[in-house]
Amino acid sequence: MRYSIGIDIGGTNTDIGLVSGDGRCLARKNLSTASYFDASVYVADICAKIHEMMAEQQVDAIDGIGIAAPAGNYYTGCIENATNLNFKGIIDLPKLFREHIDVPVVVSNDANAAAYGELVYGGAKGMKNFITFTLGTGVGSGIVIDGKLVHGKTGNAGELGHAILILGGRPCGCGRKGCLETYTSATGIRRTALEVLAQHPEYNGPLSKLSEEELTSKHVGDAANAGDPLALEIFRMTGEWLGIALANAVAFSSPEAIFLMGGPVKAGEVLMKPVRESFQRNLCFVYDNSVEIKVSELSGNNVAILGAAALTKAK
Amino acid sequence: MRYSIGIDIGGTNTDIGLVSGDGRCLARKNLSTASYFDASVYVADICAKIHEMMAEQQVDAIDGIGIAAPAGNYYTGCIENATNLNFKGIIDLPKLFREHIDVPVVVSNDANAAAYGELVYGGAKGMKNFITFTLGTGVGSGIVIDGKLVHGKTGNAGELGHAILILGGRPCGCGRKGCLETYTSATGIRRTALEVLAQHPEYNGPLSKLSEEELTSKHVGDAANAGDPLALEIFRMTGEWLGIALANAVAFSSPEAIFLMGGPVKAGEVLMKPVRESFQRNLCFVYDNSVEIKVSELSGNNVAILGAAALTKAK
Repeated sequence: MRYSIGIDIGGTNTDIGLVSGDGRCLARKNLSTASYFDASVYVADICAKIHEMMAEQQVDAIDGIGIAAPAGNYYTGCIENATNLNFKGIIDLPKLFREHIDVPVVVSNDANAAAYGELVYGGAKGMKNFITFTLGTGVGSGIVIDGKLVHGKTGNAGELGHAILILGGRPCGCGRKGCLETYTSATGIRRTALEVLAQHPEYNGPLSKLSEEELTSKHVGDAANAGDPLALEIFRMTGEWLGIALANAVAFSSPEAIFLMGGPVKAGEVLMKPVRESFQRNLCFVYDNSVEIKVSELSGNNVAILGAAALTKAK
Repeated sequence: MRYSIGIDIGGTNTDIGLVSGDGRCLARKNLSTASYFDASVYVADICAKIHEMMAEQQVDAIDGIGIAAPAGNYYTGCIENATNLNFKGIIDLPKLFREHIDVPVVVSNDANAAAYGELVYGGAKGMKNFITFTLGTGVGSGIVIDGKLVHGKTGNAGELGHAILILGGRPCGCGRKGCLETYTSATGIRRTALEVLAQHPEYNGPLSKLSEEELTSKHVGDAANAGDPLALEIFRMTGEWLGIALANAVAFSSPEAIFLMGGPVKAGEVLMKPVRESFQRNLCFVYDNSVEIKVSELSGNNVAILGAAALTKAK
């Protein structure tokens, strides 16, 4: 059996997993990212956790370490000027890890790692051309063409959350307006919900019981699954927007499937049905019947670790 | 010296060129596509022209034949249900050519051929990641990632003219609304001009001297270059739209350059300046200073033939 390590670096926590060749997360440990201010101490502690897991699982050797990191650059292996980490400037992860463990270290961002997780361990096994969209705080995407993740000139290819969907639309954290993620991320769904609620002062369903601060996309999903008409309308609008974005992505790379993942997707058919309907309506006819819209087959707490571990198998 | 044949099949004419390895079109001949109703007779006549050119130029052997054809499928080599040709159904070009000349035959559409022309003979020489947009009757695009043209699952990848730019916008020939090509093709520019002229009945500049039937994007370009304010406004609007589409394309594949070609681009800076300004304004900051917007370095009457010939060097 071959083994690899997947590391998911978030602003708050760092999850570290030991992954078997068949995609099982055999062990996991974590660290508080936010409590570190020196990257070399941080990496030394991660490596200590890796050695502990290997000893506990009686694993003698690993093939590589895959790391999903904010502002992680595939080409350089560095975290470059991450805005939500204490580590400033350029952090050369492969160099720091090499002081403790001498195996290949592959770095990318979490959306690209998710795409590789789907390819290596999930529903995209054997596929040559597909795209993943992760709906979270933002919208991340990973694009696989001819079996390889697209990195582009900068290493930042596949930022479809920042493709402009609606000209002059909602302000985005990136400083522009109308980006896809302002409409279809978990945060975007919350924005839609607040807009729709403001338009319907007579509404007294489950979403009206929550304060503006409390309301999340999870509440919208729960209400939609309980049959609440306003929640269903919010998801219909979200599905309309996302379906157009997926149809536009198909005009780019003609994939055989698009996988959706992330919190709002867990609501199930109340979101997926309007997404598929909008997608079919907005797809250019030359692609008819060539693309499936699917829910990611990776799920549970280990998705990010599996995606990171899959990066070690990236070509 | 190595030689190849480039063939550009249009609904009206077919241009055939003998191209040297360094990208010179040494000889060209043409046929009336529209006068043929039997594809095997058509291909036999093309092959006779090829043999004539080879004899006249004292070329003994060619490496391959590249064909840019409407509805040309790279994977199958077939023209598939072209709407503007007399040949109906599936036309297996490699099989038909093999009866006369036994060299590899590579088929694609004209937009993909243009991208390969730029890569092999034009401004993209040595580039790994770039995109070409051809502004004509429609908007064609060709996408090169890691040095290879993107064909996708169907062979129809890179139809960015049919990415939806404006939700619920102008009706498109594809049956949907708001496609990029309804705004930024030569035909789209004409539509914009007619809209702007209708809004300005007081205008008495050069465009007012033309009937609705006469007006083309070429007239708009000429008027813009003569300083006509209304024509400049039409190009400012076109540039605004195209710049957004180019910025969205960058979020997909992070290219190092985007090349523009086609009739309207010949107007020069009156179009290119607003395109670049809108592009910079609408580009997501992670791609700042990583992409150049360039005019194609292929020009003149041989562009389509060079692009088709370049397909024989496709990987």
